[in-house]
Amino acid sequence: MHDKVEAMKKLRAALIERRVDDDIVDLLLLINSIKGVHTTSSCSGRIGIMETPEIGAKPKARWLLKEHRTITYEEVLESLKNVREGLILFKVQSPIFHVVCENLKIARRVHYYGMESGFKYTNYRALSDSGRILVEINGTENISVPLGIDGKLLVDEKYIRFLVDVGNQVLMRGKRKLERLRESFKRLKSELGDDPNFSRYDLKSY
Amino acid sequence: MHDKVEAMKKLRAALIERRVDDDIVDLLLLINSIKGVHTTSSCSGRIGIMETPEIGAKPKARWLLKEHRTITYEEVLESLKNVREGLILFKVQSPIFHVVCENLKIARRVHYYGMESGFKYTNYRALSDSGRILVEINGTENISVPLGIDGKLLVDEKYIRFLVDVGNQVLMRGKRKLERLRESFKRLKSELGDDPNFSRYDLKSY
Repeated sequence: MHDKVEAMKKLRAALIERRVDDDIVDLLLLINSIKGVHTTSSCSGRIGIMETPEIGAKPKARWLLKEHRTITYEEVLESLKNVREGLILFKVQSPIFHVVCENLKIARRVHYYGMESGFKYTNYRALSDSGRILVEINGTENISVPLGIDGKLLVDEKYIRFLVDVGNQVLMRGKRKLERLRESFKRLKSELGDDPNFSRYDLKSY
Repeated sequence: MHDKVEAMKKLRAALIERRVDDDIVDLLLLINSIKGVHTTSSCSGRIGIMETPEIGAKPKARWLLKEHRTITYEEVLESLKNVREGLILFKVQSPIFHVVCENLKIARRVHYYGMESGFKYTNYRALSDSGRILVEINGTENISVPLGIDGKLLVDEKYIRFLVDVGNQVLMRGKRKLERLRESFKRLKSELGDDPNFSRYDLKSY
């Protein structure tokens, strides 16, 4: 696990290049302003269409549509013009945060607040020799729907409209928990205090 | 986290009542024969049809079909006769094992072997005050497909046949990793040694 200085350099670069999901910029700044914790990778929750050789084969997957907001039937239809080969999947993924904690005590507080904010797949992802612990805040708002294979769709317009509707609801159910998570991290900040070096990371201006 | 004596009483009762998935009985006996580790809940991977008020609302979900082996189109059709209300979901879930480890060193070995056997969602689920750690061995072989709502299906026979085929493949991809996991726990047993109390749990005869 990288240390905070290194992680904050990467976050700063990502903010400058606008690679951070808009709806969690404030939350990431809040988390990183707390003493003893910092974020690595994170996602505000997403929805879209993917082509993949098989389910779970992450590295070979190709997104045809990927948005961090609700999508429309027309956007799905447009993206499906680009299908080539492999399994065509409609996907929704919960918001996810990787939070590195300096020690066990802090990690257990972050885990507690993740669960309490409704992210029921929150877990300890890695325990390092240095005593640092990586907490993954993750939810159950995930769906993965095979729509067809090798360029051929096996569902009709009515079903896709239904699925877009269900998918958008699932996406928003995950995103609504972000507000609770923000309140939780405010409480954590009052428990753990400010990171005295936060201003040095120069994150605020982007 | 319960201690091993208590957990083994529960496992013994589950074995007697045949509530343990057949294809992992041997593996559970192997894991529990190792010094310093024991299992709590586990599942060998399953596939089926569920009705739920909304996605992720676990406690209110109702299974219409749930099998730990591949299923047929006819079984799905039969189960769909019992739909009533809520979202109708086709589900596949990876094998999952909850392994309580006596200390950090053991937990890290179990985590390593879980990942190495292909269970890529393996994580530390809980860290207790006693120093015990709950490792969750879990895979990425999960799908969750809305088929319709409030008794009304929005997919046709052709799609359901396709989905049963994809689902069975995903199920078996998860189950094939059980053999690698068994080999991994054999290695762990040679590292950590036998639990000298194993015969007292009286698990072998069922």
